[in-house]
Amino acid sequence: MIIAIKPGASAASVARFSAMIEKQGIKVHRSEGASQVVLGLVGDTTGIQEKSLLAHHLVEKVIRVQEPYKRANRLFHPDDTRIAICGLDGETRHIGAGYVGIIAGPCSVETREQIISVAQSVKAAGAGFLRGGVFKPRTSPYSFQGLGCGGLDLLIEAKNVTGLPIVTELMAIHQLEIFDAVDIIQVGARNMQNFTLLKELGSCRKPILLKRGYAATITELLMAAEYIMAGGNDRIILCERGIRTFESYTRNTLDLSAIPILKKHSHLPVIVDPSHGTGLSWMVPAMAKAAIAAGADGLILEVHPNPEEALCDGEQSIRPDAFERLMKTLQAYAALEGRLLKEEAHERP
Amino acid sequence: MIIAIKPGASAASVARFSAMIEKQGIKVHRSEGASQVVLGLVGDTTGIQEKSLLAHHLVEKVIRVQEPYKRANRLFHPDDTRIAICGLDGETRHIGAGYVGIIAGPCSVETREQIISVAQSVKAAGAGFLRGGVFKPRTSPYSFQGLGCGGLDLLIEAKNVTGLPIVTELMAIHQLEIFDAVDIIQVGARNMQNFTLLKELGSCRKPILLKRGYAATITELLMAAEYIMAGGNDRIILCERGIRTFESYTRNTLDLSAIPILKKHSHLPVIVDPSHGTGLSWMVPAMAKAAIAAGADGLILEVHPNPEEALCDGEQSIRPDAFERLMKTLQAYAALEGRLLKEEAHERP
Amino acid sequence: MIIAIKPGASAASVARFSAMIEKQGIKVHRSEGASQVVLGLVGDTTGIQEKSLLAHHLVEKVIRVQEPYKRANRLFHPDDTRIAICGLDGETRHIGAGYVGIIAGPCSVETREQIISVAQSVKAAGAGFLRGGVFKPRTSPYSFQGLGCGGLDLLIEAKNVTGLPIVTELMAIHQLEIFDAVDIIQVGARNMQNFTLLKELGSCRKPILLKRGYAATITELLMAAEYIMAGGNDRIILCERGIRTFESYTRNTLDLSAIPILKKHSHLPVIVDPSHGTGLSWMVPAMAKAAIAAGADGLILEVHPNPEEALCDGEQSIRPDAFERLMKTLQAYAALEGRLLKEEAHERP
Amino acid sequence: MIIAIKPGASAASVARFSAMIEKQGIKVHRSEGASQVVLGLVGDTTGIQEKSLLAHHLVEKVIRVQEPYKRANRLFHPDDTRIAICGLDGETRHIGAGYVGIIAGPCSVETREQIISVAQSVKAAGAGFLRGGVFKPRTSPYSFQGLGCGGLDLLIEAKNVTGLPIVTELMAIHQLEIFDAVDIIQVGARNMQNFTLLKELGSCRKPILLKRGYAATITELLMAAEYIMAGGNDRIILCERGIRTFESYTRNTLDLSAIPILKKHSHLPVIVDPSHGTGLSWMVPAMAKAAIAAGADGLILEVHPNPEEALCDGEQSIRPDAFERLMKTLQAYAALEGRLLKEEAHERP
Repeated sequence: MIIAIKPGASAASVARFSAMIEKQGIKVHRSEGASQVVLGLVGDTTGIQEKSLLAHHLVEKVIRVQEPYKRANRLFHPDDTRIAICGLDGETRHIGAGYVGIIAGPCSVETREQIISVAQSVKAAGAGFLRGGVFKPRTSPYSFQGLGCGGLDLLIEAKNVTGLPIVTELMAIHQLEIFDAVDIIQVGARNMQNFTLLKELGSCRKPILLKRGYAATITELLMAAEYIMAGGNDRIILCERGIRTFESYTRNTLDLSAIPILKKHSHLPVIVDPSHGTGLSWMVPAMAKAAIAAGADGLILEVHPNPEEALCDGEQSIRPDAFERLMKTLQAYAALEGRLLKEEAHERP
Repeated sequence: MIIAIKPGASAASVARFSAMIEKQGIKVHRSEGASQVVLGLVGDTTGIQEKSLLAHHLVEKVIRVQEPYKRANRLFHPDDTRIAICGLDGETRHIGAGYVGIIAGPCSVETREQIISVAQSVKAAGAGFLRGGVFKPRTSPYSFQGLGCGGLDLLIEAKNVTGLPIVTELMAIHQLEIFDAVDIIQVGARNMQNFTLLKELGSCRKPILLKRGYAATITELLMAAEYIMAGGNDRIILCERGIRTFESYTRNTLDLSAIPILKKHSHLPVIVDPSHGTGLSWMVPAMAKAAIAAGADGLILEVHPNPEEALCDGEQSIRPDAFERLMKTLQAYAALEGRLLKEEAHERP
Repeated sequence: MIIAIKPGASAASVARFSAMIEKQGIKVHRSEGASQVVLGLVGDTTGIQEKSLLAHHLVEKVIRVQEPYKRANRLFHPDDTRIAICGLDGETRHIGAGYVGIIAGPCSVETREQIISVAQSVKAAGAGFLRGGVFKPRTSPYSFQGLGCGGLDLLIEAKNVTGLPIVTELMAIHQLEIFDAVDIIQVGARNMQNFTLLKELGSCRKPILLKRGYAATITELLMAAEYIMAGGNDRIILCERGIRTFESYTRNTLDLSAIPILKKHSHLPVIVDPSHGTGLSWMVPAMAKAAIAAGADGLILEVHPNPEEALCDGEQSIRPDAFERLMKTLQAYAALEGRLLKEEAHERP
Repeated sequence: MIIAIKPGASAASVARFSAMIEKQGIKVHRSEGASQVVLGLVGDTTGIQEKSLLAHHLVEKVIRVQEPYKRANRLFHPDDTRIAICGLDGETRHIGAGYVGIIAGPCSVETREQIISVAQSVKAAGAGFLRGGVFKPRTSPYSFQGLGCGGLDLLIEAKNVTGLPIVTELMAIHQLEIFDAVDIIQVGARNMQNFTLLKELGSCRKPILLKRGYAATITELLMAAEYIMAGGNDRIILCERGIRTFESYTRNTLDLSAIPILKKHSHLPVIVDPSHGTGLSWMVPAMAKAAIAAGADGLILEVHPNPEEALCDGEQSIRPDAFERLMKTLQAYAALEGRLLKEEAHERP
């Protein structure tokens, strides 16, 4: 961290300021410029906030050189993290480090028939994981809130039938107790900075699918991952799902630039949700292909047998047949860069 | 709600679609246009989402005429809601309906001396409420996270000493047990759509200070209030605290337009947080005055005896003497529209 | 400007890099930190762009200490600039340095009767200037584009009748020839970075009302002013008129924070356009008051005798009687800080 | 267009309002709902603005069913538009309708050696067009503004040497006179709503590369194209180049969702500028691939022999060797969907 001191500051006041910082265990290196003093902070500055320093009357500007995250940082973990999960069918699915994982299923679990039929279709088409919401974060208290525990039972039944690992969203800590059979726990965009929840998940032994908040910067997403990792759980899958901008044609603006940035600064796998990211099913194939081309390690896609009658988010769900066609296309895209989409790949390490 | 059907839809398919909607207890009125059929939905459409309708292949466009909130809606509650809280000193403080409530105090409770001295200063200057964070939502897991329960004890001590009602942020439901002595519970911007928390607060008997999420629309803020109100707690104070935009000079862009909009559509009191809304203490007086001029029912302000040594957000805290000067100015602004700032006003109803 | 060099850079490469910068007439001061070299650039760095430096493989981060604008910078011109314009009635109107100037009139000049009647009403209510669009920037080529030269003639007629100085938008350089009788030339938000136009206006001798682009940062607005000032014209009035955000209730999000920021960094007067800034006439009074309270040096307001029949932007225009009431309120707000709104003030210096 | 009338409006006032609209040559169809009257407007409503209607006291909501653009609208021109340009080498290059056109070259023309060497490299690598800025829109009046006419001469020389058609930005109408040898005229993001310029280009016979303004909606981009097309020039290439959002890691947020949306609603070809869209050269390959995967009809890329010494935007330029490698990859991506990148394709229709 580098601090530019305001011109004209007295040597004594700069010394006092430096001493204050050094009390936090950081070494301050002072260098005298032509017109202005610059302080270089050496040591672990992850606990220091730029804006706290800016409160000081001597400080003109601050630049952070070291990123504020450690465990999520590729600098300290150069190799890609790969998440591996074994299904009840004995097959292991992978996300990251050359494997493109596809998570598919309905926005909400609605009926036994619906979830099992979707599970079977997406498995047949090559999906690695089954998604299905049971506790639903809805803008209105009067909208369908998900089937809750009953829905979770149906999702688990679909897991038992197909062998697919399952992914579902956790909305509150106390739900952890009933998430035993869940393979990947999703933290929704609205909870990305629910720090109490994140801390709790740090001591959980399951992979976490962490969605980017719709107004979160890329650094904030990595800091949210850091919260979980600081607690000891380093199996995090980051998920870009669209940010809020002035453009109102789409539900959100899918920020595919986030993929190469996250992968440069972090070793964690990065997946994309083009269903929420656009909010429009006809856009899903184009954006899914673009996400893979930009380097995404996977996708999470809403698939519904009858989107027009979906209880939630039907306008962004594709049908099983469209999903099957899309999977074929995506395989070709992944293959261009030597990556594997479908889990036929026993021969890979 | 009005639905424009795509041109060329068959009468039979429109009839089936109408029947599907009517199953939800809503009457559908069909009117035949020159080139296109339009359906008018009559009844309580708050549970219907525009985007679910858009999933249907017959639907071209949807307009919502009725707002999706009920209890927060001024339509059904034309008079301003006023929140009244009696302090331990026997005085009642008000927010809303002609009363401008001022909540002041440090970002974080740090020491007994700090919080008691700030409490005394802000009371002397005319503040109606004392704020102080004890559980702090911080972007980094390595930053100061607040003093926790020990901090809450200090805040309560300051309440006992000064008689001022206290306001502090709740980060998780289980903290409710220890919030007995807290007078107003704050829900932070990052938890505005933590729906599990909101539902829980619906059955709580304390006023809730609900901060707008930094990427939440005005409608979403009202829907978050509606979540709490649907549970039976209608003492909500809405708080504008800045939204995320491309402008990076300020921490957030304080959206003062939200004040007249919220007050037009809702009866709930609306306050403003210029400290977080700008992130810069020198801007606080200008934006505090502007908020009052725009019609805000109150302010929440960070005051710290020594901002340069604050453990959190010092750059946006003003000193007690600046606060005192600001209070005098704000009184003059409030008086211009016949509103009361300081609680000298026993004679008011 | 301070440049943090990447750790591990060789002394020779840093020396070559420094030499490259010094060729641009800037002195480079090198200081050796514990882990990293920092370069301080001394001299006029306004022509150097941070991002060009970032292209260099040695550069890790760059901080600009000196603002990139000079003539618009309060640092080199500590006193407020005041724009004074004498009307045909012999009275001088002022904007800035204690004077709050009010510019009012219709979005578009429509008929002789309309513009003269509005001019008379707003003058009677205390406005200092008459606005009226004749060349209109419209999103659609099929919308009313303004009356053009004929409209300008009518606007000039209204000036002759009332004595009020007139303000209208210039859309292209060649229109300058017919702008002789125009007192203040408006540059619209969409032209804020039409650099060819800005350069041309630098050699013009009339005050320029420069509107902030709807996605322009505050620094970019000041740089746009700098373009004009670099050409020799330093009579610029800056105008905040709303920025684009995710919030769609209002046409734009009026960024009142821009007022104190612009006034801190620049000596130029700052006015606000609450009509375009909100797009909704019922919000204009609240936001006009807030703008004055935040320190604005003036307002530009749309006033139309019959907003429902306006050819352009009727939904954001207020009626003459509402304008008159608003003027009385605004005077009270301005007076609170010892500022003058109506031009009764011969006694002021 | 559908207008929901406020409940309780008298039949007579609705009739007067309808008559007012019918005066504009539009038929109004009135349909009586259970609680509210709805008007359907039949005819060409492109000249009617929603917000003008909203000014009327009877109007509650407005939905536009018909898009406000005509000539740019795919509805009236179902087939993809293909832009074909013959180079001095006798080869024809295409953009759109199955052809992926690549425009490459430096941000600014700097020297004869630089532009000719880049031109030769990018041609050898398979680019179809040479770009090079000579009139540069720069945020600061003190930054390098391009070589102007001298630069244009050098660019034309590079065209003569290589045979590549050239693309450069026009900043003002009067420059048209010297643009004879320019093959595609670029309108920059900051001029996207310079309506005077757009109208002028409507009578020009050259293809126009129209960049999306950095805060322009997709509809506004199409309306800007419509301005040019309304004048008779229908050879427009739309270009997505990043929008402004709160995310500050990248210069802009490249909105790849715009590609499928523009292609659904318009027949015009759509290209992407990943250099400006990210501002970071290391991100260009990932985003270029993603753009092609999302369906873009081409790319405009900054290539510089020595980005570290570029006079402008070096941080976002790639080197010729990186460009060559990228071209090979992009060909593979284009081929996946049967599209052609390099112009080897004489056999295509």
